Amino acid sequence: MKIVIYGLGIIGGSFAKAIKKYTDCYVVGINRSRKPLEDALACGAIDEIGNTEALCDADMLILGTFPGAMIKFIKDNAQLIPKKCIVTDSAGIKTDLCRELTDVSKEYGFSFVGCHPMAGKEKNGFSASEADLFVGASCVIVPCAADKSAVETVDKLMRKLRFGQIMYSTPEEHDRIISFTSQLPHVIACSYVMSPTCPKHTGFSAGSYRDVSRVANINEKLWAELFLENREPLIKEINILTENLNSIKSAIQNGDREALEELLAKSRRIKESLGE
Amino acid sequence: MKIVIYGLGIIGGSFAKAIKKYTDCYVVGINRSRKPLEDALACGAIDEIGNTEALCDADMLILGTFPGAMIKFIKDNAQLIPKKCIVTDSAGIKTDLCRELTDVSKEYGFSFVGCHPMAGKEKNGFSASEADLFVGASCVIVPCAADKSAVETVDKLMRKLRFGQIMYSTPEEHDRIISFTSQLPHVIACSYVMSPTCPKHTGFSAGSYRDVSRVANINEKLWAELFLENREPLIKEINILTENLNSIKSAIQNGDREALEELLAKSRRIKESLGE
Repeated sequence: MKIVIYGLGIIGGSFAKAIKKYTDCYVVGINRSRKPLEDALACGAIDEIGNTEALCDADMLILGTFPGAMIKFIKDNAQLIPKKCIVTDSAGIKTDLCRELTDVSKEYGFSFVGCHPMAGKEKNGFSASEADLFVGASCVIVPCAADKSAVETVDKLMRKLRFGQIMYSTPEEHDRIISFTSQLPHVIACSYVMSPTCPKHTGFSAGSYRDVSRVANINEKLWAELFLENREPLIKEINILTENLNSIKSAIQNGDREALEELLAKSRRIKESLGE
Repeated sequence: MKIVIYGLGIIGGSFAKAIKKYTDCYVVGINRSRKPLEDALACGAIDEIGNTEALCDADMLILGTFPGAMIKFIKDNAQLIPKKCIVTDSAGIKTDLCRELTDVSKEYGFSFVGCHPMAGKEKNGFSASEADLFVGASCVIVPCAADKSAVETVDKLMRKLRFGQIMYSTPEEHDRIISFTSQLPHVIACSYVMSPTCPKHTGFSAGSYRDVSRVANINEKLWAELFLENREPLIKEINILTENLNSIKSAIQNGDREALEELLAKSRRIKESLGE
């Protein structure tokens, strides 16, 4: 199978490395800048540095850029993508992207299967990529309008790359849950470290500071795009969080120990019921 | 040196185990219930199960209970504590506790040195204690009115127990910073998991969900007491967090990409400037 990867950042680069490590597929890399391509070729993560011509006989195309750039790339090059080709992505939001790419795929006859590898780091770029970034992680597949065999091909590949579990979802459900599990923690981390107290924390902090602040080390261009494309569910989750913060604050302010203990116990029971 | 430990939960138990592992001190345990004492004796974490009579020739008394219970124990037994004895605690808040215990120490002639070992787990009780819980962690010492030699004795002991760094602070500064580094992350975690979306997260979550929700597995009685005793600084931090959440929310709501990127970039720069 010939796989073209467009965008060799941490995710595209990790796909390249994992595919070379765990499968026999032939991998062609396309990237806006030259350096990641040369690094990827040098370390064996890709077999070939390509350009859009490589699409013509590709069996699969994996998109590894920002969501907006994915849509532009597909629209610009749709006429080069053969009907046998399965296009998949790695974006953190799905609703708009899946609608746009499904429309183009139907027009030109290739397949589109949405895909969200739930893995990452606080670092970016090809130098942060790892063959085992996805080991044990969750992969959400959003089949959209693709036929069964295209979905199965993506599913099989992801299992070979050692994802821990494959989940199936719709674009809307995916975006609703992701606004809570992934976007909101980034909003929280950024809001948290902006406290004027933060720079004084050294020596006064332990695991809970480290954990809640970790993802404040953010790629602001990527996450601004993800937040803006998932506006409605994310704002809803920020509002729910703010309400819950206010409930706890009121109990503290009123010195209402019983209400406070009950709120904290409710949280503990939720975590316990999830087996966490 | 004869050390009495009052309260053999995760912190008191870890002190017992660490003292037996890293020093030659003789350790006596006092605890409200019997089981932790028997377990501690059986595994060599204490040399003897004691009662308040053990205080009479103690060189050091380490308090490992909830803050309110620490104050009660000292007030009830102050007449048994010899002048040579150094009393220290392990509470997560300091202002009220240090004032009360310093007053009693002055009246009866023993020393009181405040101490906050910045370590813990999502589990409680003696069964969760570890000899190496403090290895590499930060220890905040709050000298209050204690003389230099008493402070040095506590400092030396903490270094022997392998704390990574010893910080010195006042009760007020300690409580102000702790409201941000430790209490606020617990408030956030509890507020976060109360979203109705939380139970649906399985398969749609990765590190950022895990990290921000971790400490929601909370001991509600302990943390309600800690929050209520540090009301003013904690409410201030919750307000700052809410304002920052609202700034990010407004930028998303207004579709203001530039403002949003600038807010996220500000957070990233704060993390970077701290070398994290």
